[in-house]
Amino acid sequence: MESQNARPRRPFRLAALLPAAALAAATASGAAAPAPPAVEPTAGAALAAARAHREARGAEILSEFADLVALPNVASDLPAVRANAAAIAASLGRRGVRAKVLALPGRPEVPPVVYGELRAETGDPGAARTLLLYAHYDGQPVEEARWRQPPWEPTLYTRALEAGGEPRPLPAPGEEVDPEWRLYARSAADDKAPIGALLAALDALAAARIPRTVNLKLFLEGEEEAGSPHLGDYLQAYAGRLGGDVWLFFDGPVHQSGRPQLFFGVRGIAQLEITVYGAGRYLHSGHYGNFAPNPALELARLLASMKDAGGRVTIAGFYDSATPLGEAERRALAAIPPFEDELRRDLGLAASEGGDARYGERMALPSLNVRGFVSGSVGETARNVIPPEATASLDLRLVEGDDPEAMLDLVEAHVRRQGWHVVAEPPDHPTRLAHPRIARLVRSPHYRAVRTAMDLPIVAPVVAAAEAAAGREVVLTPTLGGSLPLYLFEDLSGLPLIGVPIVNHDNNQHAPNENLRIANLWYGIDLLAVLLTMPAP
Amino acid sequence: MESQNARPRRPFRLAALLPAAALAAATASGAAAPAPPAVEPTAGAALAAARAHREARGAEILSEFADLVALPNVASDLPAVRANAAAIAASLGRRGVRAKVLALPGRPEVPPVVYGELRAETGDPGAARTLLLYAHYDGQPVEEARWRQPPWEPTLYTRALEAGGEPRPLPAPGEEVDPEWRLYARSAADDKAPIGALLAALDALAAARIPRTVNLKLFLEGEEEAGSPHLGDYLQAYAGRLGGDVWLFFDGPVHQSGRPQLFFGVRGIAQLEITVYGAGRYLHSGHYGNFAPNPALELARLLASMKDAGGRVTIAGFYDSATPLGEAERRALAAIPPFEDELRRDLGLAASEGGDARYGERMALPSLNVRGFVSGSVGETARNVIPPEATASLDLRLVEGDDPEAMLDLVEAHVRRQGWHVVAEPPDHPTRLAHPRIARLVRSPHYRAVRTAMDLPIVAPVVAAAEAAAGREVVLTPTLGGSLPLYLFEDLSGLPLIGVPIVNHDNNQHAPNENLRIANLWYGIDLLAVLLTMPAP
Repeated sequence: MESQNARPRRPFRLAALLPAAALAAATASGAAAPAPPAVEPTAGAALAAARAHREARGAEILSEFADLVALPNVASDLPAVRANAAAIAASLGRRGVRAKVLALPGRPEVPPVVYGELRAETGDPGAARTLLLYAHYDGQPVEEARWRQPPWEPTLYTRALEAGGEPRPLPAPGEEVDPEWRLYARSAADDKAPIGALLAALDALAAARIPRTVNLKLFLEGEEEAGSPHLGDYLQAYAGRLGGDVWLFFDGPVHQSGRPQLFFGVRGIAQLEITVYGAGRYLHSGHYGNFAPNPALELARLLASMKDAGGRVTIAGFYDSATPLGEAERRALAAIPPFEDELRRDLGLAASEGGDARYGERMALPSLNVRGFVSGSVGETARNVIPPEATASLDLRLVEGDDPEAMLDLVEAHVRRQGWHVVAEPPDHPTRLAHPRIARLVRSPHYRAVRTAMDLPIVAPVVAAAEAAAGREVVLTPTLGGSLPLYLFEDLSGLPLIGVPIVNHDNNQHAPNENLRIANLWYGIDLLAVLLTMPAP
Repeated sequence: MESQNARPRRPFRLAALLPAAALAAATASGAAAPAPPAVEPTAGAALAAARAHREARGAEILSEFADLVALPNVASDLPAVRANAAAIAASLGRRGVRAKVLALPGRPEVPPVVYGELRAETGDPGAARTLLLYAHYDGQPVEEARWRQPPWEPTLYTRALEAGGEPRPLPAPGEEVDPEWRLYARSAADDKAPIGALLAALDALAAARIPRTVNLKLFLEGEEEAGSPHLGDYLQAYAGRLGGDVWLFFDGPVHQSGRPQLFFGVRGIAQLEITVYGAGRYLHSGHYGNFAPNPALELARLLASMKDAGGRVTIAGFYDSATPLGEAERRALAAIPPFEDELRRDLGLAASEGGDARYGERMALPSLNVRGFVSGSVGETARNVIPPEATASLDLRLVEGDDPEAMLDLVEAHVRRQGWHVVAEPPDHPTRLAHPRIARLVRSPHYRAVRTAMDLPIVAPVVAAAEAAAGREVVLTPTLGGSLPLYLFEDLSGLPLIGVPIVNHDNNQHAPNENLRIANLWYGIDLLAVLLTMPAP
């Protein structure tokens, strides 16, 4: 994988670059030193402060972040998410943020939102820009057996596991931090990394006495990985507090090339579970093989009918409702240097779906993915049976123009056209006897895609901040491949939405051995320090 | 399901049918009564003795059998199978059988065989027929979570679970036993039922003082469900003891119609596990969906290419080596009344593979079955990922003429023709980059089919015994659908081989909730009592 930016791997000492006062503040041990005068808020000063703070206090930043990701945080575990919310609000409070743990009125069983406000320190706060920062503190469920170490026992590795990384202790105070180290833990990347970066960025600016130029509002969700079932309710309940200039969504990974990116849209999502049925019980494959139909093979045939060998979905109408990319988006995509060959190499793929098509073109199309397929057993527990049923779990990623229910309707119509009788509940005996092919379809929560115009006035300073933090051009992506429920923000506030991912693209998000590359945490700190000192409009 | 035979469901009192002496012995409580004179060994006397014994001692038969199936017996658990062997040898010894637990010379880690001899009690034992009885006392591994009760805690139900059966205690001594009850436990059917039936049959004949007319040799295997890896070694090591007139294989279920059957052949078996690979790690289905190939879908497409919607295997040459059935076998098949509609109803199937083809015709063809298909997760644990691999476990059932390795070669050639690069080990990174489609094929132990001529002299008395025990015509099946390693017996002894299944066809063999219908245990007792009193040649 390409390095995050053009910096050398070993951090160099910043003394030569940093204003003297900022350096003194950043490297002083705090309380004992007399307060030096405030420093002019510029991108250069903010970056120098962030880097000096990382160099002086890198071990403490990692230690505090490890404590944060050590908290189990699956949304269904209410006491756990509450403990996360309280810890985060306390950490923010120590930085002067007016932080509150917000409950959904009348719904104490819903994971709370951590809300926070921090006023600009220059000029008239009423005239300053207000940035609304979104992240989520809950994490995906874990399959603990597949992890190298328990998912909530954060462990530092010398590099990625796939690259031969070895575990090592957290650094001692003052010990140099290698930015290629990785911290392995659930939510180290998705999505506690921005929270850790914000805490460090606030410390860095404070240590260097660089005043913030913008108002900041934080909205940290606690059930994003559960499908954000109450996000809309929260936004409506607290709409009065959520005015501002732009929503910045800190979620998802940086570009696959390793370069930072901003994104202006996300795909929507819809999910569908298909279960097909054979005989009413497990059958001996000898006594019934060639007589009783095999549901695993029947489901295989059904799925194979949905997508061709080139990766094109063959369900009638699947691509018809997608809004094609406009001229601005096509230009942005064309400006991205080709990285697909490198990505394929990194993923261990000789070929990708869509042949030579650019990655960005593929993300601008709806997709159909088999998340899981289970029937009977394989390996040591396989037995000579015909399994009674087979289940596949599908997710569809949707683009601007696709209606989730209408897309699921197309899949269901396809299943029927293949000769299947569609049911909503497991079939009873008479139903089984009446239909040779029975498929149970269960739809799951889903939402539509969103895309924001790239020529609004607020876009330019955010792009400039990202380029300053990255020290290079950043990738501008019209539509991210992943999904966030941004439509809720679009519906409720009408504010522009910009995605600001910071974590490494190979972070094993949603999977075993999730990890955060330390260089990406450093980028997040830099980016937030520059955003918080953005020039007034 | 049709009743096992024409008997009414409530057992009737046999006093009127039974010779007075036999009745006295069968109903006497044993030691205290003076020994009455021996009874002429006829099928009628043997049957009457068996029935009287069941009526008088049904509770004790079930209790002893429940103790036998309460012993965990997965072949890989060596202490467990040894405990089974010791218990069975002791039970046989109490009936006068010279029983031994045989180890494989020099291989103490191999599950033992229980061997036993019992001489004829009439005429010259040297002139009597010698029946060699095979069964196995080990059982399939269990997926305990799928069982209604722990698999080695035998539980009596008032009928099949699928028919609304409710658990009930084992009967008290003297309590009437309903033959429609079912005993649920691992190996209740496969394959401890014949052992339980033999113990009761020996007791019944002894109680009625009916002398045995045949020599009996027992060969009870302890690792059949592990693929009989040492059966050939055992047969060679103890070949000197294994002379006789016919091997009777007590394994497998009765005919699907519920009627008893004899079988004269079995299908062979070959197994194959196919794993296909996507990216080298789990990927977020949003960020990579439409770019990274989905291995579950690729494997689905590969499997779908192997078999058409009508159940015909589309692998080139798959049916070419099968020896067609001869005239005698065709006549035997034609004599079986149609039962396929009833079987489909019982299984909950609106249609079976091969359309209107007879069941027997389908079993005379090789089959390809998907035992399991696993990729990612479904249901509550499904996540929005592209799984890195997908695995299917296949079993092939083979018929006379099919060479196992050659059949697996055909499958492998088919996989290659579909564009897959075939490997034996998980692919390394360079291999992944060199081939867009990689399939790992792992073959498992397997053996060929066997078919025995139906016009040998020993066949007629065995058929007569089964018809006497069943009280009706029995089904004569040229080739059973299931597999047994009968080729080893064919290779080593050249003796005729007849399969003598006794257990209900809906016994959930190899699956959760295995069970034995009590009426089928009764049939086994009857059948063995008649076989042991077979007329001299």
